[in-house]
Amino acid sequence: MPGTNRQIRLAARPVGEVKPEDWEHAEAPAAEPGEGEFAGRTRFVSLDPAMRGWLDDRPSYLPPVGLGEVMRAGSVVEVTASNHPRYQVGDLVVGTFGVQEQVVSDGRGTVRIDASVAPPSTYLGALGMPGMTAYFGLLEVGALKEGETVVVSGAAGAVGSLVGQIAKVKGCRVVGIAGGPEKCALLTDELGFDAAIDYRSEDVRKALRTHCPDGIDVYFDNVGGDILDAALARLAMHARVVICGAISQYNAESKVTGPSNYLSLLVRRARMEGFVVFDYAARYKAAAAEMAGWIADGRITVKEHVVRGTVDDFPATLQMLFRGENVGKLVLELV
Amino acid sequence: MPGTNRQIRLAARPVGEVKPEDWEHAEAPAAEPGEGEFAGRTRFVSLDPAMRGWLDDRPSYLPPVGLGEVMRAGSVVEVTASNHPRYQVGDLVVGTFGVQEQVVSDGRGTVRIDASVAPPSTYLGALGMPGMTAYFGLLEVGALKEGETVVVSGAAGAVGSLVGQIAKVKGCRVVGIAGGPEKCALLTDELGFDAAIDYRSEDVRKALRTHCPDGIDVYFDNVGGDILDAALARLAMHARVVICGAISQYNAESKVTGPSNYLSLLVRRARMEGFVVFDYAARYKAAAAEMAGWIADGRITVKEHVVRGTVDDFPATLQMLFRGENVGKLVLELV
Repeated sequence: MPGTNRQIRLAARPVGEVKPEDWEHAEAPAAEPGEGEFAGRTRFVSLDPAMRGWLDDRPSYLPPVGLGEVMRAGSVVEVTASNHPRYQVGDLVVGTFGVQEQVVSDGRGTVRIDASVAPPSTYLGALGMPGMTAYFGLLEVGALKEGETVVVSGAAGAVGSLVGQIAKVKGCRVVGIAGGPEKCALLTDELGFDAAIDYRSEDVRKALRTHCPDGIDVYFDNVGGDILDAALARLAMHARVVICGAISQYNAESKVTGPSNYLSLLVRRARMEGFVVFDYAARYKAAAAEMAGWIADGRITVKEHVVRGTVDDFPATLQMLFRGENVGKLVLELV
Repeated sequence: MPGTNRQIRLAARPVGEVKPEDWEHAEAPAAEPGEGEFAGRTRFVSLDPAMRGWLDDRPSYLPPVGLGEVMRAGSVVEVTASNHPRYQVGDLVVGTFGVQEQVVSDGRGTVRIDASVAPPSTYLGALGMPGMTAYFGLLEVGALKEGETVVVSGAAGAVGSLVGQIAKVKGCRVVGIAGGPEKCALLTDELGFDAAIDYRSEDVRKALRTHCPDGIDVYFDNVGGDILDAALARLAMHARVVICGAISQYNAESKVTGPSNYLSLLVRRARMEGFVVFDYAARYKAAAAEMAGWIADGRITVKEHVVRGTVDDFPATLQMLFRGENVGKLVLELV
């Protein structure tokens, strides 16, 4: 039915895991674009681990999503009407448009997609936030040097799968940690990782001793918890621990578990550093161009997990992410 | 009785707090200096929080003290006989000679004391390891900049009291955390700190909000545990957390408590970094000269807590340290 805009709004602040009743499935009238604006129809919605943090009412790098507000999300929209000088009907545009079918935007913070470079969904993954997160986290925060040993957790996820592959491009030894034999096989057989550790069936600490005989130079952490502790126990001298996320802790109802092996930072003269990718926005364009080159060369393989459905499938798709059921970048394609 | 050398040796690996029975009070024949060696009589023994770590049988930045070995310690000795080209009878020499009355050394890793610069005990404190630890930890690892807000825990201890004063020399706002009203009064009334927080009677997190309205730029941690967590919750953007020690955790019988607020590193784009002062050995001389200048100027006040006794008083004196009963650098003077 044209003229209505189906939306997913935050109904309640989740405690622990996000539950179906934390969301409101709502309808609003579809707005018309005003002067200098364009309207678009959502084609792809991004699902990201960081979303869990946006739901909590506490200070962070972005304000929390308000109760009753449309859920914040990156998405790709197709322009359906435009009074905007840069966009024409039919253009594909990526931006933070939220989980809804119809959007109206003045174009701030948006980028036109060049479909000759990569499929639209890739602008939410390797050429979007996850790609930029992997790139700047590994190369800038991690200060990666050729020949080093890199370990990444959440290695089969959107960010992790790119971290490992970028490290291979840079001539490093790469060990990925992921859950389950399929993900681990993907890492070594398809993505070029030197080794994979299945944290569900292996003793991670022991496996890190085997696969990193000279210690870990850069540990890129997406998960926190016990795996962070295992990596801290295996740091090389002057190692860098990049804190990108902590998906194992996001749904914790009690206090986050801190890394009890943090004193290894002292013994190994190492540092642990956090970052937020937005700080590198001025350099996205150059980084995305480099990444697109690696993809075109076949040096980086893009893994995307596309769920086809409607905005109403957003809550269930988000649960997949926190249960580790996706491989690569998780995207909801609206059909 | 000349000809005998009373020593404190490690008798057992302590579990939790070090107990009297973990030490052996032994006697050995006093050795004669050989070719190129000197003999000395111990005058001052250094007591340092790091000693607890040296007693555990696990990999660290130094090998553990072996069972039956003389306890490792920095000390000042007076040369009593010398076949060494650089040392003469009567010279005062600082080195890692261990907890014993008599020493013989080939001079490696030793430094002659210039009593015109500072009293001998100060070569174990402000001009020795604690001074170098404060200097390089704050200025190099902490990358302190003028006008920043610095918080230091263990602020009335050997290292902490110097960290705060060096930060004042560098034009910073300084808040110290210490245990008890006397130590806190010392910090503000005598050492020039801008504020002091008594962790025994105050809510540290709340007090940090009061005293650091714009957040903490450099947090110098000597204690770990809850205080580290409180500081992490109050970091300014791009803050540096210097991990120097964790005295609250050294006697822990169970696992070290990790900082559950470590994700604040991500939100605040901050880093946490450990160091070991020995890595800066090549620069000690210049740093000690600068420190001696600040002491001579009266810009830095040296606090020393001197216990007078014999080597047999070492175990009880070490307990004082872990119970927080000392103010400033704790030294055992042999009389």
